[in-house]
Amino acid sequence: MIFSEVPAVGAGVFTRNAIKSPSVLYDMEVARSKTVRGIVANSGNANTCNGPRGMVDVLATADTAAGLMGVDTSDIFVSSTGVIGLPLPINMVKKGLSALPGALRPDGWEDAARAIMTTDTVPKLSAVKLRLGGKAATVLGIAKGAGMIQPNMATMLCFVATDADISKRMLKAALKAATDVSFNRITVDGDSSTNDSVIVLANGVAGNGRIDKPSVEYYAFLDGLTAVMSGLARMIVKDGEGATKLVEVRVTGAASERDADTAARAISNSPLVKTALYAADPNWGRILCAAGYSGAKLDPDAVSIAFDRTFMVKRGTGLGPDAEAKVEKVMQRDEYVITVDLGAGKSSASILTCDLGHEYVKINAEYRS
Amino acid sequence: MIFSEVPAVGAGVFTRNAIKSPSVLYDMEVARSKTVRGIVANSGNANTCNGPRGMVDVLATADTAAGLMGVDTSDIFVSSTGVIGLPLPINMVKKGLSALPGALRPDGWEDAARAIMTTDTVPKLSAVKLRLGGKAATVLGIAKGAGMIQPNMATMLCFVATDADISKRMLKAALKAATDVSFNRITVDGDSSTNDSVIVLANGVAGNGRIDKPSVEYYAFLDGLTAVMSGLARMIVKDGEGATKLVEVRVTGAASERDADTAARAISNSPLVKTALYAADPNWGRILCAAGYSGAKLDPDAVSIAFDRTFMVKRGTGLGPDAEAKVEKVMQRDEYVITVDLGAGKSSASILTCDLGHEYVKINAEYRS
Repeated sequence: MIFSEVPAVGAGVFTRNAIKSPSVLYDMEVARSKTVRGIVANSGNANTCNGPRGMVDVLATADTAAGLMGVDTSDIFVSSTGVIGLPLPINMVKKGLSALPGALRPDGWEDAARAIMTTDTVPKLSAVKLRLGGKAATVLGIAKGAGMIQPNMATMLCFVATDADISKRMLKAALKAATDVSFNRITVDGDSSTNDSVIVLANGVAGNGRIDKPSVEYYAFLDGLTAVMSGLARMIVKDGEGATKLVEVRVTGAASERDADTAARAISNSPLVKTALYAADPNWGRILCAAGYSGAKLDPDAVSIAFDRTFMVKRGTGLGPDAEAKVEKVMQRDEYVITVDLGAGKSSASILTCDLGHEYVKINAEYRS
Repeated sequence: MIFSEVPAVGAGVFTRNAIKSPSVLYDMEVARSKTVRGIVANSGNANTCNGPRGMVDVLATADTAAGLMGVDTSDIFVSSTGVIGLPLPINMVKKGLSALPGALRPDGWEDAARAIMTTDTVPKLSAVKLRLGGKAATVLGIAKGAGMIQPNMATMLCFVATDADISKRMLKAALKAATDVSFNRITVDGDSSTNDSVIVLANGVAGNGRIDKPSVEYYAFLDGLTAVMSGLARMIVKDGEGATKLVEVRVTGAASERDADTAARAISNSPLVKTALYAADPNWGRILCAAGYSGAKLDPDAVSIAFDRTFMVKRGTGLGPDAEAKVEKVMQRDEYVITVDLGAGKSSASILTCDLGHEYVKINAEYRS
């Protein structure tokens, strides 16, 4: 449970999957409330596809938490993550909730980050300190998510809390802008799971003048929010199930931003590319092939590929064994950038991805069984 | 090498990947010739992304083969499959070609099927006998391909030969129709590799009256061609890298055929679904999730899922542990059908897929290294 001692403004971005958990449908309503007070989340059970009972259990969860904290039911966001199609053990949830009010601590963030883990191997926290109108403020976030990421993401949850004073309208704008350059670069609300949610609460306790327009303070806040969310997004990819590499796929020279994005996603999601990353094998043909079938406009005779600063392909032609040997060394690194220039324009986009190794199969063949 | 002793009509369907092997670009020209004589293919090297040298090597291959057989260069299709970005060892190819004319045999099809294998574990042949206008005719095909299939297919090659007498125009029509219900159900020309090709030669030696319109004989021929190509497509999925299961994903109740196809492909390509198939784990939430993010219209409260004839989900709700135990048994089978009804209309489509296991990672992390 995350709880604000004073009313806060809240905002959320949620999955675009046609099948949404009832908790997401409920949270979309809560996000419309003028003020909110907190978030309750459980892991292990997604409470999705359980028929009408699903929404009943969401309301029971919110209602129980609100009763315990002495606030309105509509003040509480509810999130669930875990297996789809199993009824939520609501009595267990109620029992667990009753222990929470006494256990709330200002420094309990790591415990909270740990409580929402599923196949995550590490809890994920990120925080920044800001100066807003001469006052100190904090933006702090926790997240869970360790799936293969788009297009088959395990549920991604992110909860951000800040004591900055900001209007609901500007908070929504900041959340959208920060999501676009963080979770949407690993994708949250495009192709996503039934429960994906990013929720932010701002309670104004910092005492800065309320941010209600695109001021210098707004951009300072946006920078902080973006830093926290980008940090968490990066941790999620790095903790990708069985992942051993964190790779940024940067597509340049595209005819449009959309093309750049499409090509970067096709490369990032290709199992053939991802197994080559795992093997640190400079099999650039697979990268080119994925760019080719993505539908993005490209000029086969102008395509170039580099791994960090080492070129492997220039103008559609491989640079041979010497370049390959150098690229192999780059691919031993834990983190690197693959730049693919499509030779078709001036737009660019990048996506974070990870490799696909034996551990991925092991985790996903065994999870739930 | 496949060679017809008399001039044949030829037709081909080729990859739609923006990056095409020069052999594919060349074959698209050959397919326009009034008559053709044969096909030359190599495996191990895709001759793709080798700069201008690639096309020079294709022409040298065709020219050498044509010279040896005493026909025109433009009578010979050329196919390559293997690693992208390595120059074709053209002297080795020429040397190999010189041995072929003496080795051609009417019963050499299995050798040919074996010669084009890359990561395939078995050679793939399929043939049917037909009666056309009172005459006996044969349709025989060979294929290679064992990738994870769409959207990251390793190259798929299929060569079909028939002694049926059919016009070039009707052969093209038959090839297109047969491809749509065979290789396009595992996908060839949508998202595909740089070298994918299906080529058919018909030399008329059977002596049936030439098929030049949509007659009874045309449909008999189309049935035969479809049977051969569907059989080969099925063998390719079954031989999917590391695959242990052959699963048909059949989407019904879709708002449009396009929606049905989109949802079936999303389910078929989901690594989370494919690892669950591998583990024989009835994790239907992953299936629903993939249908949900595919973009296909669906009614969450009307979705149903069955494994062969056993329902797992009815009207958006899981049927519980008893159903799950039964479905687990179905999933032990080598081959089964997953039917997903979207509850949104009357259209349907199906896609063949396979599971994703440890062997897939092993093969693709090690291939080429």
